Amino acid sequence: MSEAVNLRVCVIGLGSMGFGVATSLLKKGFKTCGYDISAETTARFVAAGGKGAVSPAEAAAGADVVVTVVVNGAQTEQVLFGKGGAAQSMSKGGTILSFATMPPQMAEELAQRAGALGLNYIDGPISGGAKRAADGELTIMASGPPEAFNHVRPVLDAIAMTVYELGDRAGIGSSFKIVNQLLAGVHIAAACEAITFAKALGLDIDKVYEVITASAGNSWMFENRVPHILHGDYSPQSAVDIFTKDLGIVSDLGRGMTFPLPITSTALQMFIMTAAAGMGRDDDASVARLIAKVTGIELPGQPEAA
Amino acid sequence: MSEAVNLRVCVIGLGSMGFGVATSLLKKGFKTCGYDISAETTARFVAAGGKGAVSPAEAAAGADVVVTVVVNGAQTEQVLFGKGGAAQSMSKGGTILSFATMPPQMAEELAQRAGALGLNYIDGPISGGAKRAADGELTIMASGPPEAFNHVRPVLDAIAMTVYELGDRAGIGSSFKIVNQLLAGVHIAAACEAITFAKALGLDIDKVYEVITASAGNSWMFENRVPHILHGDYSPQSAVDIFTKDLGIVSDLGRGMTFPLPITSTALQMFIMTAAAGMGRDDDASVARLIAKVTGIELPGQPEAA
Repeated sequence: MSEAVNLRVCVIGLGSMGFGVATSLLKKGFKTCGYDISAETTARFVAAGGKGAVSPAEAAAGADVVVTVVVNGAQTEQVLFGKGGAAQSMSKGGTILSFATMPPQMAEELAQRAGALGLNYIDGPISGGAKRAADGELTIMASGPPEAFNHVRPVLDAIAMTVYELGDRAGIGSSFKIVNQLLAGVHIAAACEAITFAKALGLDIDKVYEVITASAGNSWMFENRVPHILHGDYSPQSAVDIFTKDLGIVSDLGRGMTFPLPITSTALQMFIMTAAAGMGRDDDASVARLIAKVTGIELPGQPEAA
Repeated sequence: MSEAVNLRVCVIGLGSMGFGVATSLLKKGFKTCGYDISAETTARFVAAGGKGAVSPAEAAAGADVVVTVVVNGAQTEQVLFGKGGAAQSMSKGGTILSFATMPPQMAEELAQRAGALGLNYIDGPISGGAKRAADGELTIMASGPPEAFNHVRPVLDAIAMTVYELGDRAGIGSSFKIVNQLLAGVHIAAACEAITFAKALGLDIDKVYEVITASAGNSWMFENRVPHILHGDYSPQSAVDIFTKDLGIVSDLGRGMTFPLPITSTALQMFIMTAAAGMGRDDDASVARLIAKVTGIELPGQPEAA
């Protein structure tokens, strides 16, 4: 344990997920240096007991493990290999833990570039939301060389409740995450379509929630997101823009493979319509507000769209 | 209890669901008369200890409760009010329990026609599949007058594990069922899209099943249907044609209300495509076989389509 804590860790990206990851590491006794593109956010991490830095390279100086918790593959590439990037300054033989959802091929490319610098790379998209990040209870769908997993095991133990080790090369973790996001996104859009349709049919939608969550029509997302609609609360636990992005990745990937994804594409269009109506940064259950707007039905406690 | 069993019950439609309903009633000691359009099926019920009949009217003669377990609203109308229908011969003051999924307005109309003959009507679409029907463990989404529920309570207790009493008039039960079918149908099609895409991405789809069922991408249908695909078993636990029908009802209803249902419509087209490819009577997970056919991926133990 004391040896474990001797790993020097760097967290790049201190948004709602990264901040929770970095503070979970502090709580478990890791020396943790954090960097965010917003100096204000970095300062908040310093106030929470962490070490701050003015660039990824400075944050990663001498680090054994660099954790990237940025939005997508392009940002991951930038903070690792761009100007002032982390890859150049971290310890040789160190391990990069990449948490963004990205196309599998991009994860493979980043792993190759890391390998060329003598670094290990774990492709480990996360899920679980901000609260579970703060509680050290993320789920990680990860792939990479077994020795890299062994190296970062204490870090993973500190931040995740469940780590799926899905294969020995980058790209596999991202592929699993993409399949999960396909389903999650479709299920959110379907939940919004169903609950607004139920309202249009004149049903008591609280009762619909009770019946459906005990029936064959249930999904994890129906159960989790429909309460936002029932309470009229669209403060972003996960924003519309996240699924516009993630289903965009799925859709691009399918087209590149000449693999038809009709349901995914339709769900993606509903997220895009919702973003176009000005709700991109609101909770993803806002797809229901879009449908309500279009059809004129009234949902509970509906605030004006941002 | 002995008074309860004195209710004379008639079951019309002895298919995979109706046969289970009728034999559950026999097991609980109800005098039960059954009728099916197939004389052979009716004979099978007689062999199981029931009473048979050559028409709905004969089966319902003097019955206190008539249970219709046919495919849709049109068949329900026919067996109740058509030539040789049950409504004319059952006891005045008796109760019709209608189990088919149909448009809410059709349920309302049937209830009105029953009322005009001095009969009660419960709009109670069922779910649960053939095995749970045989075990007396159906789920019923029901609406109708409270006195009708009181009248048929012993019958419901004999055949259902869960009875939702959702309102005091016909149409509400059907509306709940329709919302459930919307979600269930979309989730089956999405599960098929996701698991075939996972295969195309080169993933171990048994592992995908394990990971997704523990993740935010899970649905009741993903968990229930994907094993059919993993085992290559498309013997019809619930056929493609059922969802072609049920999502057709949802879709027609939405169009009639000028309510857009983009995801439902896309899923419906996938069921129609699967039926068009000759798999209408196979298990609804056959949507995955359709996608496999189109894209050339290989799914486990895939028998030739019927």
